[in-house]
Amino acid sequence: MGAAHTAIDTDVAVIGAGPAGLWAAFQLGLQELRTHVLDSLPHAGGQCAELYPDKPIYDVPAAPALAAHELTQRLLQQLAPLNVPLHLGQVVTSLQPIEGDDPQAAPRWRLGTDGGLVLTARAVVIAAGVGAFLPRTLPVPGLQAWEGRQVFHRDPPDGAWLDREVVVAGGGEAAVRLALRLAQGGAARVTLLHRTDRFAIDAALDEQLQSALGAGGVRLCLGQPIAALAADDGTLQALDIATARDERFTLPLDLLLPRLGLHPRLGPIADWGLALERKHLVVDAATLQTSRPGIHAVGDIVHYPGKRKLVVCAFHEATLAAFAIAERLRGGPVPLEYTTTSPRLLALLRGVG
Amino acid sequence: MGAAHTAIDTDVAVIGAGPAGLWAAFQLGLQELRTHVLDSLPHAGGQCAELYPDKPIYDVPAAPALAAHELTQRLLQQLAPLNVPLHLGQVVTSLQPIEGDDPQAAPRWRLGTDGGLVLTARAVVIAAGVGAFLPRTLPVPGLQAWEGRQVFHRDPPDGAWLDREVVVAGGGEAAVRLALRLAQGGAARVTLLHRTDRFAIDAALDEQLQSALGAGGVRLCLGQPIAALAADDGTLQALDIATARDERFTLPLDLLLPRLGLHPRLGPIADWGLALERKHLVVDAATLQTSRPGIHAVGDIVHYPGKRKLVVCAFHEATLAAFAIAERLRGGPVPLEYTTTSPRLLALLRGVG
Repeated sequence: MGAAHTAIDTDVAVIGAGPAGLWAAFQLGLQELRTHVLDSLPHAGGQCAELYPDKPIYDVPAAPALAAHELTQRLLQQLAPLNVPLHLGQVVTSLQPIEGDDPQAAPRWRLGTDGGLVLTARAVVIAAGVGAFLPRTLPVPGLQAWEGRQVFHRDPPDGAWLDREVVVAGGGEAAVRLALRLAQGGAARVTLLHRTDRFAIDAALDEQLQSALGAGGVRLCLGQPIAALAADDGTLQALDIATARDERFTLPLDLLLPRLGLHPRLGPIADWGLALERKHLVVDAATLQTSRPGIHAVGDIVHYPGKRKLVVCAFHEATLAAFAIAERLRGGPVPLEYTTTSPRLLALLRGVG
Repeated sequence: MGAAHTAIDTDVAVIGAGPAGLWAAFQLGLQELRTHVLDSLPHAGGQCAELYPDKPIYDVPAAPALAAHELTQRLLQQLAPLNVPLHLGQVVTSLQPIEGDDPQAAPRWRLGTDGGLVLTARAVVIAAGVGAFLPRTLPVPGLQAWEGRQVFHRDPPDGAWLDREVVVAGGGEAAVRLALRLAQGGAARVTLLHRTDRFAIDAALDEQLQSALGAGGVRLCLGQPIAALAADDGTLQALDIATARDERFTLPLDLLLPRLGLHPRLGPIADWGLALERKHLVVDAATLQTSRPGIHAVGDIVHYPGKRKLVVCAFHEATLAAFAIAERLRGGPVPLEYTTTSPRLLALLRGVG
């Protein structure tokens, strides 16, 4: 996306800031390995925080009932003394070995993100859960050609909507809030495009929407986009819309902002040459290493004999992965120390609690 | 010990009420398997609670700093809705298959305790940590012959000390408190036997001890017992004591109460025919099953490739063991359900939080 290319050199890159990734970072921090965490979402917490932030989880040990946002909060608090940087809103799009390609050697790895971040790391932990949460796209052929210029699945550049014809597509809270915001923020016209007039929003927001519709600040367009129309200069000019009764009309626009929600996708991870079994990364249960040396994976994305997709198992996997990485990077066994008694660990964690 | 023989029939017996055992019980409860927990200590919590009840543990996920007694408390609270009985102060001394001895079949199991409890179970989870915490014994040959009659490593029967010459052996809090209690409780004479006059007790208790010594309620005897002397009728009559200067004298007694602390011992578990590797039970990492079908083991007592003796790993192992047991007892796969969304699990856990 054209951001400045920042190259960060580190010991370990953790992909995913859900519970598994945060715990991997904690355990790697206890091993005194320099660790960076990346996540596609703009906040830590992963799928639990994204899918059910407020519903209690009952099977986190020693936490009889814990909401996902609270789980995230506590894991971040626990991680805080170890000073591990989080890079949020960054989809890791590439992962490549830097030196050679001998499958038995353990090369360094270069990671690139869609935000222009570049990291080099001696080991990688993939803790990507059910995959990166990526925006759902409109099923209109050819639309991606305008992505980043007239079509924005994430926030457009500041003021890009000023005096423009803006179409927000979607029927949920994100779409409605964005439409209301841009209508008050200087757009020439804001159209909310949805297939029905039923919106998945609460009563208070619905009242705001009805008021904006009544005052003409936001216009409603009911139907499904089926084609994108280009002008002679190649810009996106309009969408062809089909109504529920199969009537057609044309919706002119300068800016298209699909807000159809996020869905988890294995995405780029599938292209990194790692052994997969039914869309899960195959790992060695003792080290959580994937089929490529130095690339480990933990949490819902992995498979090994006995694997259960529970957060309690992800915590264990992240712990074993951290020990395995520490042993490989140090070239020898890493003794077990207890946080209750080890002066080294207590010094690292000083100030917690 | 001659208590009433109560036979309990259950699905699963969990040996050990430390974090691993309590979590195994929780996961088995979620599987709706009838579960009973046994522990040698008179309270839940296992080695953490026994060895460092108040020191914070920093590596329980989502609990930045948690004292062992609080960890225990929270696990008990989490387990509460599942109504799992705990049998405390019971050392499991025997474990035997009930039907046949075909190593491939999965027999039922009979467990017996030193408290006279008998359980029959379809599966067993050994979560015994570093072993059962058993009282240290005095290194005096032949003393065990009087165990339960004149020598008591645990509480003697009520009033057994009335008008008797009582010797309490030990230099810690348990020994001093017992000596003070019996001195005020009707013993003819109470002698505190310890090798030095330094006691591992706090200032307040030391003040009480000094006051009792001054008033003659408790007498101090400094030295090491080296032999037990029997009377003509076979009763224990006295101990031969060696002082630090290697002088000898005889200490007459009616009742001997060693209070030398507890130490963990693999104990009877080593005799149950389970494969061991350097004093650890060998288990399959996917099911946590030992070398005998139906006998699973979790926590610090087990070994498998990658094993780390951390509570976070014990939680994972207990979870996998519960799933493996549920699958075997039901004869088929057990689907994964989330406590966040499963109506069945929510009904089981109703009222938590």
